[in-house]
Amino acid sequence: MPDLNPVSLITAKRDGQTLPADAIHRLIDAYTLGAVPDYQMSAFLMAAFLRGLNDAETAALTDAMLYSGTVLDLSGTPGLKVDKHSTGGVGDKVSLILAPTVAACGVPVPMISGRGLGHSGGTLDKLESIPGFRTDLSTEAYKAQLEKIGLVMIGQTREIAPADGKLYALRDVTGTVECIPFIAASIMSKKLAEGIDALVLDVKAGRGAFMKTEADARRLAETLVAIGERFGKPTVAWMTSMDVPLGRAVGNWPEVEESIRCLQGADVPDLMEVTLALAGEMLHLGGVTGTPAEGRTRAQEAIASGAAFDKLVALVEAQQGDASVLHNPALRAEATPAAQVHAPDHARGYVADLDALALGYVAVALGAGRRTKEDAVDPTAGLVLRKKPGEAVAPGDVLADLYTKKTDELAVFTASLQAAYTFDGTPPPPTRMLLDRYTKAGWMPI
Amino acid sequence: MPDLNPVSLITAKRDGQTLPADAIHRLIDAYTLGAVPDYQMSAFLMAAFLRGLNDAETAALTDAMLYSGTVLDLSGTPGLKVDKHSTGGVGDKVSLILAPTVAACGVPVPMISGRGLGHSGGTLDKLESIPGFRTDLSTEAYKAQLEKIGLVMIGQTREIAPADGKLYALRDVTGTVECIPFIAASIMSKKLAEGIDALVLDVKAGRGAFMKTEADARRLAETLVAIGERFGKPTVAWMTSMDVPLGRAVGNWPEVEESIRCLQGADVPDLMEVTLALAGEMLHLGGVTGTPAEGRTRAQEAIASGAAFDKLVALVEAQQGDASVLHNPALRAEATPAAQVHAPDHARGYVADLDALALGYVAVALGAGRRTKEDAVDPTAGLVLRKKPGEAVAPGDVLADLYTKKTDELAVFTASLQAAYTFDGTPPPPTRMLLDRYTKAGWMPI
Repeated sequence: MPDLNPVSLITAKRDGQTLPADAIHRLIDAYTLGAVPDYQMSAFLMAAFLRGLNDAETAALTDAMLYSGTVLDLSGTPGLKVDKHSTGGVGDKVSLILAPTVAACGVPVPMISGRGLGHSGGTLDKLESIPGFRTDLSTEAYKAQLEKIGLVMIGQTREIAPADGKLYALRDVTGTVECIPFIAASIMSKKLAEGIDALVLDVKAGRGAFMKTEADARRLAETLVAIGERFGKPTVAWMTSMDVPLGRAVGNWPEVEESIRCLQGADVPDLMEVTLALAGEMLHLGGVTGTPAEGRTRAQEAIASGAAFDKLVALVEAQQGDASVLHNPALRAEATPAAQVHAPDHARGYVADLDALALGYVAVALGAGRRTKEDAVDPTAGLVLRKKPGEAVAPGDVLADLYTKKTDELAVFTASLQAAYTFDGTPPPPTRMLLDRYTKAGWMPI
Repeated sequence: MPDLNPVSLITAKRDGQTLPADAIHRLIDAYTLGAVPDYQMSAFLMAAFLRGLNDAETAALTDAMLYSGTVLDLSGTPGLKVDKHSTGGVGDKVSLILAPTVAACGVPVPMISGRGLGHSGGTLDKLESIPGFRTDLSTEAYKAQLEKIGLVMIGQTREIAPADGKLYALRDVTGTVECIPFIAASIMSKKLAEGIDALVLDVKAGRGAFMKTEADARRLAETLVAIGERFGKPTVAWMTSMDVPLGRAVGNWPEVEESIRCLQGADVPDLMEVTLALAGEMLHLGGVTGTPAEGRTRAQEAIASGAAFDKLVALVEAQQGDASVLHNPALRAEATPAAQVHAPDHARGYVADLDALALGYVAVALGAGRRTKEDAVDPTAGLVLRKKPGEAVAPGDVLADLYTKKTDELAVFTASLQAAYTFDGTPPPPTRMLLDRYTKAGWMPI
C-alpha cells in the first residue's frame, strides 16, 4: 500500500496499482482544501485515465467527492424520493415531462440539474426560459418545496460536492474528460448528495450523445449502477438512442413548449417512449406500483387526467415563474420563426437520417447554447423540426422552423441544417429508442 | 495531425498518437514562457510517460529544450571538444580523474555538471569540497579557461536549457521522473548546449544506479546515443556496473582525496577500469588516437607522467581553489575518522556483497548528501571502505572509516553500514565493471 504523499499516490496509479479507499479520500480532501496543487492532481487524473480505476476505487472517488460537501437530508418528506439523470443529448427535454408526471403519481422528485455545454442542452437553461423561474433556491427552500408539492428542480449549490466542480474544471483543460470512472463519480456524487432513495439513469448512446458507442454507454451504465447500489440506493439504467434529436424542438423555450404539449396529451412518439419507460421505473422504485410496466400505465393516466400538467404549473408557481405562459405558450416572445428551412432539390422520397450532433451545433449557433461556460444563452432561440427520419419529403417542403436573433447569419444556419439531413427513395427502418436496460441483476429489457 | 492547442496535444498523446516535431516545439516554448500552465504540462508529461515518445519525438523534445536557452560556441578553442556524462552512482568520482587526464592528452574537456540528490553524489559538490573552488563561472570565463588550459568544470548556468530546469522541477513532484525519453532529453539538451563535438556516456546499471536493470540501462543508452548522433555529435555509451560503490571513498572530500591518489598512480581497480575505458573513448573521439584502446594506453601514460595530476592542479588554480590540499590532502580538515565500523561476529571468510544503494544513504545520513534540494552538504563528511567484496574478513576487522559531524548518531550509522554488508565462507565471483558498449553501430564491447 502506497503512503499518502501525493507523489506516491501518483506513481502507484501510474504503475497500475489499485489504491486503497482512504488514500483516494485523503487525496481528494487535500485537493479540495488546496493542499494538493492542480499540477499534481492533473498528473494523477491522467494516470488514472490511462491505467483505469476499478469499481472500489471509483466508489471511493465518488464517496470522497460526495462528502466534500453536504448530503441533504430529505427525511422531512415522507416516501421514497427518486430522481432521474440523463447523460445528455440533443432535444432531450425528458425531465420537463417526466418529473411533474412522476411527482403527480405520488413519488417525490428532488432534482438538481446542470446547464447546457457544447452541443447538448441543460435542464436549468430550459426552466429559466420560463419568465421569472428561479433555479437558485436555498437548501431550506428546496426541502420545504419538496415537502409541500413533492417536486423541486434547482441548480447545483455550493454545498453540493464542491470537489466535483474543482475537478471538472481541471479535467476540462487537461484532456481528462472522457473517462468513465470520472464521469460516473461526477454524476453520482451530485445525485447522491441530493438525498435521494433511488435513481433512474438515461444513458444515451449515439452520435448526439456523450458516449458515441453502445459499448461505452454500456460500461458507463454498469459503472453508474454499481456505484448507486454500493451506496445502498436502488439504481436502474436505460440505454437509449441519441443518433437523431429527441422530439421535434431543440432550444430552451421551444423544448418547454413541446413539453407542455406532451403534458397536455400530445404524442411525440420517440420522446414519449423514453419518458414513459423512465417514468415506469421511477414509480416502481418509488414503491407506488409493483412493476415498471404498471408504473408506465400510471404515468400515462396522470398525463391523461391533467394531473401531470397541473404539477408542472405548481412547480413553476412555487419557483416564481410566470405560469401564464404554460397555459398560453403564444404569450412568450418569438411565436413566429425567423426563417424556415426548405428541402433542397435532391430531397425526394423520405428523410433517411438526421444527424443529432450537427443539429445540436446548429442550435448553439442560433443562440440556444454555449460554446464556453461564460456564454449567455438566448432563451427563445432554437428550432422546430418539421421533418424527421421516416417522413415523406419533396423539394421545397419545410424541414424546420428557425428561431434566432442572429438574422444576418440565416444563410449559414440554413445550409448547416440542410447538411444535417440525408434523403433516400425508400424509408429507413424505424429507430429503436429503448436499446437496453441494466440493473444490479444485469442487462435485461423490461 | 493535432492542432496546437495544449488540450489537443495532451489528448493526442493520451490516445497514443505520435506528435509532429513542431507541435512539441511549440508546447515546450509556450511552457517555458509561462503560456502553458504547470497543470497542463503535468498532464502531458504523464500521458507521454505512459504512452511513450518515439525517437523522433524524443529528439524534438531535446531540441526544444536545447534551444530554450543558449548553445555555447566553443570555436575559440581548436580541436574536438569531448565531454562525458554519467547517469550517477555511489562513489562515482570518475569525472575528477577522467577530465584532467583527457585534457592532459590534448582533448579539450568542457564539463557542466550537477549536484548530488538522493543517494548519488554530484561532481559540483565534490569540486566545491576543495577550499575556494568556484563552479559559478560566467559563460565568457568558461570559454576563456577552456582556451587557456583545455579544461573547465562548472555548474549549470541560467542560459543553459532553462526549459530543462522548469520541466525537471515539475517532473519531480508529479511522478514523471523515471521515463527514459524525458531523462535522455534532459541529459542531452544540457550536454549539447555546452558546445561539444562528441560525447561519451557512462550509463550505470544496478541497485546503486538510477537504472536498476540492465534492460532499462540499455534502453537509456540507445536513446542517448540516438539523440547525440541525430544532432551530428558522435556519441558512445558504456554500460557499467553500479551494484557496489565505485572505489573506496564515498562523500565529497573523501572522493576528491581518492581521485588525487589515482591521479598520482594509485590503482583502485574497479574505479580505474571504468575511468580508463571512458578516457580511451574520449581520446579516440577527440581524434588524438586511432582507436579507443590506444586512447586507454595514452591516458595511462598521462597519469604515470604526472601530466594528468598537473592538469587537475591547473584546473583548481584557474577556478580559485586552494591547490595546496591537492599536494597535501592531510591539510584538509577531519583527517582522522570520527569512528570506525567493525565487522560483526558472523563476519567470517569473505565480504560477499556490499549494497551500493544502502551505502549511498549512509553517506547522505553522515552529511555528505542531500535529502531535498535545499539541504546543505558537509564537504568533509563521508566514509572510506576498508573492506570490499572479495576481500577476506574476520570479526572485529575494520569495515569502514566514518567521517561526520553528527557524532551522536554514530550507533545508527554503524548499524546501517554493517547491514549493507553480507559475508560468506567462500569468495564471490569477481564483479564485471564494463558490461557492454553501445555506438550507432550497435551493442559491441571494445
